[in-house]
Order: sequence, then C-alpha cells, then structure tokens
Amino acid sequence: MHRYRSHTCAALRKSDVGSTVRLSGWVHRVRDHGGILFIDLRDHYGLTQIVADPDSPAFKVAETVRGEWVIRVDGEVKARTEETVNPNLPTGEVEIFAREIEVLSTAKELPLPVFGEPDYPEDIRLKYRFLDLRRDTLHKNIMSRTKIIAAMRRRMGEVGFTEFSTPILTASSPEGARDFLVPSRIHPGKFYALPQAPQIYKQLIMVSGFDRYFQIAPCFRDEDPRADRLPGEFYQLDLEMSFVEQEDILKTMEPVLRGVFEEFAEGKPVTKEFPRIPYDEAMRKYGSDKPDLRNPIVMEAVTEHFAGSGFKVFANMIASDPKVEIWAIPAKTGGSRAFCDRMNSWAQGEGQPGLGYIFWRKEGEALEGAGPLAKNIGPERTEAIRTQLGLDDGDACFFVAGDPKKFVAFAGAARTRVGEELDLVDRDRFELCWIIDFPFYEWNEDEKKIDFGHNPFSMPQGGIEALQNADPLSIKAFQYDMVCNGFEIASGGIRNHLPDTMVKAFEIVGFDRDTVEERFGGLYRAFQYGAPPHGGMAAGIDRIVMLLVGAKNLREITMFPMNQQAYDLLMNAPSEATPAQLRDLHIRLAPVKKDA
Amino acid sequence: MHRYRSHTCAALRKSDVGSTVRLSGWVHRVRDHGGILFIDLRDHYGLTQIVADPDSPAFKVAETVRGEWVIRVDGEVKARTEETVNPNLPTGEVEIFAREIEVLSTAKELPLPVFGEPDYPEDIRLKYRFLDLRRDTLHKNIMSRTKIIAAMRRRMGEVGFTEFSTPILTASSPEGARDFLVPSRIHPGKFYALPQAPQIYKQLIMVSGFDRYFQIAPCFRDEDPRADRLPGEFYQLDLEMSFVEQEDILKTMEPVLRGVFEEFAEGKPVTKEFPRIPYDEAMRKYGSDKPDLRNPIVMEAVTEHFAGSGFKVFANMIASDPKVEIWAIPAKTGGSRAFCDRMNSWAQGEGQPGLGYIFWRKEGEALEGAGPLAKNIGPERTEAIRTQLGLDDGDACFFVAGDPKKFVAFAGAARTRVGEELDLVDRDRFELCWIIDFPFYEWNEDEKKIDFGHNPFSMPQGGIEALQNADPLSIKAFQYDMVCNGFEIASGGIRNHLPDTMVKAFEIVGFDRDTVEERFGGLYRAFQYGAPPHGGMAAGIDRIVMLLVGAKNLREITMFPMNQQAYDLLMNAPSEATPAQLRDLHIRLAPVKKDA
Repeated sequence: MHRYRSHTCAALRKSDVGSTVRLSGWVHRVRDHGGILFIDLRDHYGLTQIVADPDSPAFKVAETVRGEWVIRVDGEVKARTEETVNPNLPTGEVEIFAREIEVLSTAKELPLPVFGEPDYPEDIRLKYRFLDLRRDTLHKNIMSRTKIIAAMRRRMGEVGFTEFSTPILTASSPEGARDFLVPSRIHPGKFYALPQAPQIYKQLIMVSGFDRYFQIAPCFRDEDPRADRLPGEFYQLDLEMSFVEQEDILKTMEPVLRGVFEEFAEGKPVTKEFPRIPYDEAMRKYGSDKPDLRNPIVMEAVTEHFAGSGFKVFANMIASDPKVEIWAIPAKTGGSRAFCDRMNSWAQGEGQPGLGYIFWRKEGEALEGAGPLAKNIGPERTEAIRTQLGLDDGDACFFVAGDPKKFVAFAGAARTRVGEELDLVDRDRFELCWIIDFPFYEWNEDEKKIDFGHNPFSMPQGGIEALQNADPLSIKAFQYDMVCNGFEIASGGIRNHLPDTMVKAFEIVGFDRDTVEERFGGLYRAFQYGAPPHGGMAAGIDRIVMLLVGAKNLREITMFPMNQQAYDLLMNAPSEATPAQLRDLHIRLAPVKKDA
Repeated sequence: MHRYRSHTCAALRKSDVGSTVRLSGWVHRVRDHGGILFIDLRDHYGLTQIVADPDSPAFKVAETVRGEWVIRVDGEVKARTEETVNPNLPTGEVEIFAREIEVLSTAKELPLPVFGEPDYPEDIRLKYRFLDLRRDTLHKNIMSRTKIIAAMRRRMGEVGFTEFSTPILTASSPEGARDFLVPSRIHPGKFYALPQAPQIYKQLIMVSGFDRYFQIAPCFRDEDPRADRLPGEFYQLDLEMSFVEQEDILKTMEPVLRGVFEEFAEGKPVTKEFPRIPYDEAMRKYGSDKPDLRNPIVMEAVTEHFAGSGFKVFANMIASDPKVEIWAIPAKTGGSRAFCDRMNSWAQGEGQPGLGYIFWRKEGEALEGAGPLAKNIGPERTEAIRTQLGLDDGDACFFVAGDPKKFVAFAGAARTRVGEELDLVDRDRFELCWIIDFPFYEWNEDEKKIDFGHNPFSMPQGGIEALQNADPLSIKAFQYDMVCNGFEIASGGIRNHLPDTMVKAFEIVGFDRDTVEERFGGLYRAFQYGAPPHGGMAAGIDRIVMLLVGAKNLREITMFPMNQQAYDLLMNAPSEATPAQLRDLHIRLAPVKKDA
C-alpha cells in the first residue's frame, strides 16, 4: 500500500464498503459523541469522516489529535446508517473505522481557524495565509482562478494563438503609470524596469512575423493603493494579431471570452451576442463607457421639451448656450415622492444642486405628472416626455441639465443609483458588450492642449488623412473595450504601424519626431522595416475572476497578495538590503527626512 | 473578401488552382527572370510564390517592392509547370498570378538580411531582433520552444497538476545566488527581491492544502555571465506534490518528461526506462553526477592490479594512503600509440602530470598489452586488467590514480574526451537517467566545516535519527536530478517538513534556531501548523528546449534575450532613471569611482 494514501479524501463511495483503505489529510474537526470520536479528515479534494471508538487500536492516538494536524489513517470503509448519511458530501454515505492513525505533523494553537471560516482580520489572514488558504471558500476561489486561466489558455490555443513569454527585466514602458525599477549591478547607475504591460513586446512580436500571440502576462505598476488593483503585480490575458482589422479581433475574441464566462457562470445567463456600442452613444445612453447593461435604464435627451418652457432654470440654460442639453433618466417603478426626494438628497450629497424629477400617478382615470417640474412645464410637455420615455403610472423620471461633457459622469452615477435603489438590476447574469469608436484625442482643459484619448499606439480612423485634415477632437480611434456588468474587462486597439502616421499623431499632441524615436525607439525602429497591420487587446484576469466567483476583494482571488500598503506579511517583504547588496548595486539610501 | 487575406502563405494547393485569392506577407525574395518578377511571399505559416509579368496590372508595383516590405497580393492560383514544381515547399505546386499589389508597409535598407540567414554579428542581431526573428531557423526554434512549453502544461494537467502563479515581487529567497532587488516607494529604504525560484512559495502551497502544483515559473538570478544561463531571467517547469515519497515523484515525472522528449525528438530514440543511479555510483562509473550515457565508457577501479606491482608510482601511492585508488577508463578502438599519446598531451594541458595507458594489439596470434605501464606491471596483471574491462585487440585503457575525491572530475572529463575523440558517442539520441541519493552534507575544505550538499530544505534519509546519530557526511538526502546527455535538466527532493528535523539539520551546519526562523520565517512558521509530507522538482526549460532543437546557444531559443553583458540592445535597458524616480524610491546613486 502507498506510504500515505490509497485514496484521496473525496474518493470513497458506498461501493467501497468493506475495503481497507489508507487516507492522509488535515484534521478538519474532531467531535466526541458519547465517547466515540469523529474526525473530519480533509485534503485538497474533499472530506471523509473517520470514526474511532474506544475499542479501536487507533483510539489512543485519535484522542490526541487537534485541528489542522496532519495524519494518516488506516481503516475499513463502512456504510453510514440511513440517519447519518450526509447528502451534502460526496463521501457522505461512508465512514472509515480507524485501525491505525499516524501523526505526520502537528499544529500549534491556530492563530486563525480553518473550520467554519469565521471573519478574521486581514493582517492575520495574510500573515498566516497558509491557514487562510485551507478555508473552503478561498481554496475554491483559487482553484476557480486557475481553472479560468487554464480555460483561457485552451480557448486561445483553439483559435490559433501561440503563447510567448516576454521579458520581465526590461525598459520603462509608456503605459503612463509608475514603473518598478531594478538597479543593475553590471551597469552602474542604470536600471531595468518591470513591464507595466507587454505592449511594446507584443507589437514587436507581430513585426517579427509571428501571427497570433497571447500571454497570461504578469504586469507591474507601482501605483498607490486602489480598491480594484493589488499593489505590485496583476495578470492580463494579453494578445495580438497580424493582418487584421478591428472586426477580426472582435469576432475572434468575443467567442473566447463568452466561452470562458459560460464555462464558469454556473448557469447564470451570459450575453449571446455582445452589442457594439459607440463611445458617444454609451455616454449618452448610460453616462459611462463602462455601462452596466443589467441596469435597464437608458437615458434620452429631452431638451426640446424644456426649451421655452415654464421651467425657467432649464429654459434659460438652453437659451443661453447651444451646448446645453437636458437628459432624462427614466425610473420605472420609482414613482413616489419619497423615492424622488431621496434621489434629490443623494444628488445634493454628490455636490449637485439637486435632481429635478417628474413622477406619474393615476388621479382617478387620468394619468398625472406630479412634482414641481411638471407643474412648471405643464401637462402637454409632461405628457410628451412620458410618451417619449414610455413611462406609466407609478414610474418617475429624473433630469440632468447643462453641458453633457460636464454632467455626464453624474448622470451615469444617477442612472446606476436609480437602477440599484429600485432593484431594476438583475444581479444573476453577465451582460457583456463592446464599446467602440473611442475618441482618438481629448482636450486637456488644465493644460489647454490636445492629449491622446487612450492609447497613443492606436490607429486613428481615417489614417494620416484624418490627422492632416480633420478636427483632431472629431477623430475616432480603432480602439475598443469589452465591458461586463459595469466593469471594463478588456481593452484593445488596431495599432498604428505606419511610422509617418505615428509621427503625425504625436505631432498633434506636441511631440516631435525625435521624442517619438527616443521614447519608443524599439518599436519606432521596428516599424521602419516592414510592419504588418496588427492589433490586439488585453483582458484583466483578476477582474474576470472576481466577476465569475462573485468576489468583492482582489485578495479573495489571489493566492499570496500583499496588503494595501504593498507589504507582504507572510514573507516580510519588502525588507532591508545589506550594505554589501547596496554597494553591489551602486546605490545608497536617501537620508530619512526628519518630518517623514 | 477579407481586407488582408483569404489564405495564409502556407495554405494553397493544387486543388485551389483557378481560384482568386488574397495573400499578405513579407517580401522574402524578388527575382527577375527575363522580365518576369517572382516574389516569394512569406508569413508566419509559410511561403507562396507570386508571379507578375509585364502584362499584369500589378507589375508596376511589383517592380518597386524590396525585401521585407509588407504587401497584399490579389491574384489567381495557377499550377506550376512540372519543371518548376518545388517539392520542398507545401505550396510548391502552385503560384499566384498577381492582379493587384498593395504596399502595406515599406522597409528601409536592411541592417540584417532575413533571406538566406547568413551569419551576422550578435549585437546587430539583438538590436534588430524583429528582423532576426523573421529568419526561418530562429522563428522555428521559438515556435518549438512555445510548443514544448505547451506540451509540458498539457502533460502536467493530464497527471493532475494545477498551475498556480507565485508572486514576482517578493522577499529574498535562499537559493544562494544574488538577488535582483526592487526598491520600495511606499516603504523607504526597503526592497523587494525577484524570486530566484518559487521554492518557498511552492512549499507554502503544499502547506496550504493544495495537492499538486506546477508552474512555468520565471526565475531571476543576478549572476555573472555564464554560457549556460542568460543574464536575468530564465524559466523552470516547477512542481510540488503532497503526501508523496521520492518514488512517487520519479514515477510521476518520468513519463511527463519522457513524453515531452518523445514528442519533440523528431524520431531520435529516447530512453524508455530511466536508470536510477546513486550519486556515488555515478561518480565512480562516469566521474560526474551529470553523466552523458550516450558515451558507453564505464570506469572501473583496478587498484588491486597495481597494488604491489612493478609500476612504482601507482604502487607506492596505493601503499602510502588507503584512500588511493586507480580507476580505469576503457577506450574501445583507441588502441594506437598516437591516440594514447594525444590523450596524454591533453591531460597535461589540463594540468595533470599525464595519463597512463595500456593498449592492446595482436603480435602474431598473441594479444599483447603495449606501452610503458604494461611493461612495468608485466603481462599477467596487464591481462587481468584487460579481462576485467572486456577489452580486445585495438582497444586501450587509461588510468587515473590518487584520492578519487580529488581526481574524479578529471577522470570524468577524460571519459568524455575519450568518448568524443573515438566517436563512441551516438549524438542522435536522448539518454536520460535519474541520479539519486545525493549526499545531504559535504565537507567545506576552505572553511573546515560541514555545509549542505545541495538543498537545505531536503529531507535527510533516516530523518532526525540519522541527524542525531550518524556521521553527517555519510547521510544521503532524498534528492534527485534528472540528467539528459550530460546535462542536468531537472532537480528536486522530498522536503523536510518537520520543524524539529529542520532545526537539527541546520544546527549541523552551524545555524541556530533563531537564524532558521529569521531566514526562512514564512516556511518555518508554516511548518508549525500542520504540514503534509511533500516534495517536488524543477526542470530547466531553456536547457530542455536547447537539447530538443539542437541549439548551442540560449539566444537561439529565446525571443528577446539580453546580451552577455546583461544589456537589452533592442529596448535599451537598463537605462538611467530620472532624479524624480530616484527621489520617489528613496535612493541615490553611489558616486562613480575614479578608477572604475
């Protein structure tokens, strides 16, 4: 028989009754039922109940074992009585009568219980992560994570992608966040950077003639703590394709990611065909380029109904500035003064002057728009608004007025708030969409200049002709995001592979050719020697896993995370370097500031 | 039709003749045959011949294209005439008559030719790696590498392993090489380290209750240039299993790696059942713990035949020191004075006094041992040696004398040399074996103390009893290497999961409990809370790929390597940091030394 086990703790069934088996695992729980000891023995695969009664030669050892000790048990498989069968456990029809128990490893008093998984302070959980990871929920999340990543790999392979690893010790990449630097021992005073993303490398891979690249890519950004990103490192499903247009990438990747969602959604519906929503439309309808489409609310402009109306605040705004619009946020089932007032207070809490509203109710047979706005604009305009939005008795509508550029974020937040408050959002589904046609440039109001909207490496729609002739702020990029339930889960673009177009695109934001060459030397040089049209995207693995397992915190889906202060409590990192190490690396510590 | 291609450049066959197709790719070569232009169009998948004659509307553009331009070609598939069929090309039965050619991207004069792959200086190849990677040999090597890694992943999954990524920003790990350090911005004066290997993490994963871990793991060592390791990062197939003994790991991993070798050996024989050779035996038979078993030479001790013999040099050594042995290196077909003298000169070049030998030849009917040694020890002893080693007419034998500990490396080198010089080594096969039973400790002659032989985390054979009672230098470890054709390709061990045994093991090399706790805190702490017996190994991916593709240089199997000075010529890394970056990281550059 094997030294440690003939079966795992998830393997035994009724058909095994009568066999002699050997199991090893952790003592999940010990119970004493009238002198008989029941041990739940746990391993990676499952749980099996061990029984030791005082007649068993194993009883003496069984009495000594405590939670999280590691033991080996030899014994006989017996059927449980009908009353004691546990239908929730795959091994619940049997138990093992212990003949012999060997203690393989003991455990000190536990700083963190495994059984029952009570809430525990995060610093203890991270310091004793090896105990925390034994808890069923986290253990399962980590297994889901690895299965999701394996499914991504498998599906990428199935559609012809090849996985390549790109260097981790490399040069600073122009993703805009802060780099982690690594001092060079061999080149005094110089530093490697850890890649913020393999953007440059994946484009170089295309220029090198490989056709479809992907990577489960570690990325590194030295950012201040953010709720949605662990300090240090995170993982992307990174990919790039040659000889493609935007449509090819969308068509290739939509089935891959839909497949991953369907595989792990545990029966929750997943969008069959992802809508493609232009950025401008997303902003108008949802007030966001990351719309949560589980929320059925679609905003509409109702400017005309307020123009020249008796509601002078809006009417005057409209009259005085052609940019002004009035957007309506329809709120089905929100038709009560109490709800409307609550939304109004919320808006004031958000720093807004308030949130105008109309709500509809039956007065006898007639449907009446209620609230101050309705009074001011009168029944005809109120009815026109109701008709446009398809609202009815018991519904409400909120209004946001001004320059849409300025209020759009607030309008989007109000849409979200209304949807959540009225419970219009079906949480048990995955609504996916593409956001396309992002603006190539944007206006930087602070510096009064034009900046890149997103990725400077994207191809502008219309190419160099557009850059030469069109209003820069009107140019769209071949750039797209994939959004799920209000989160951006992937982002990509068709790249600008033409050196002249690249120089022109940078010229518009104020960089000359020399700067382009200096900052993006490797890639710019590569484009001089025959670059294929190419494009790709990168999906955020952590976010996708969180959505699929329903975790609220990145530390619930990451095996060995640092805490929010970028400190690894388990390994005690970062730590001090020795003087010899610093000498080797040609660096010194800066003196500590008195007031620091 | 698709914007860029209806087919790849490897797709078209005779059955496609008559169809109108669209291809995109790089201009591999242009030839002008009497006014007709032939373009070899290349993409990731293959080559297709394009023809443009002066009547073609595409001719004008075809005349302008140069090597490595990227073009799109529309045209008609035609069968080649029988004389012009190229049987070496999958598309060699057809060619495309170009109707239209669009230039997608031009190329400047090439600093490095792609076609023909002439030898080129390495710095040019690395600076223009995107061109170098288009060359067929390197392109294929890189594809083989990624396929080999994918096969490893697939096979590990098939035997129940799960892939987990471990942190890259972490604490210094005790692998003994120099760490790369990463200054922390948030914790002034402190540093993360990049992992030299995920050793501690994989053991923590076992203690966390996961059962079978693997990872294609990036590892980082800041070592001085070595021929067999790229500066910076390298990859391991890293794995660990719980509730196992050594035999389990050998039995699990042998089929996985044999399978990988068989899959990519291109028909070369691969060892069916890997011999398990104890370390001591390997040293005696092959003079190495990385024996090349393609070399049939097996050394044997022949001490008794020289003891008290007329060859006084050996006889006196044997008489004066019981440690002295005489080892024989049999050399089939090496029986000529010229060869024996050449080996003798080689040995002198290696700093040895010489290399004694006997060779056998027929004198009439009689077989005679020739050379000075044979004369000195006389025909009976000479014949006894010949019989022991199974040598015959035309064979030779070399002798090494002294304390085997001191001469064993030279003896191994001589065995290798003899095998190669006599062409006894069958290069077209993969001979794999396990080396087991490594010494747990070794004597450090410089410091006159006991050190760990290999991995301090291994379990000593005999456990704590052996540590308490046995001569430390006699203790073996549950530690094993996998060796292929003279290269160590994997290494592993059963771990010491018992805190008391760990403390005792470190005590013998002079570390007290506090030091163990301080240096290996995370792991030592984890072992206090229920650790399963576990073990694993790590295989060197780069070496395995090199063996399988027959590459002599790591840069031939690595996509974006640094040069031997740890400089990335493509990306210009490492590079200078800005003063603001250094300030953020709380470090300063050390002043440059005058004499540096």
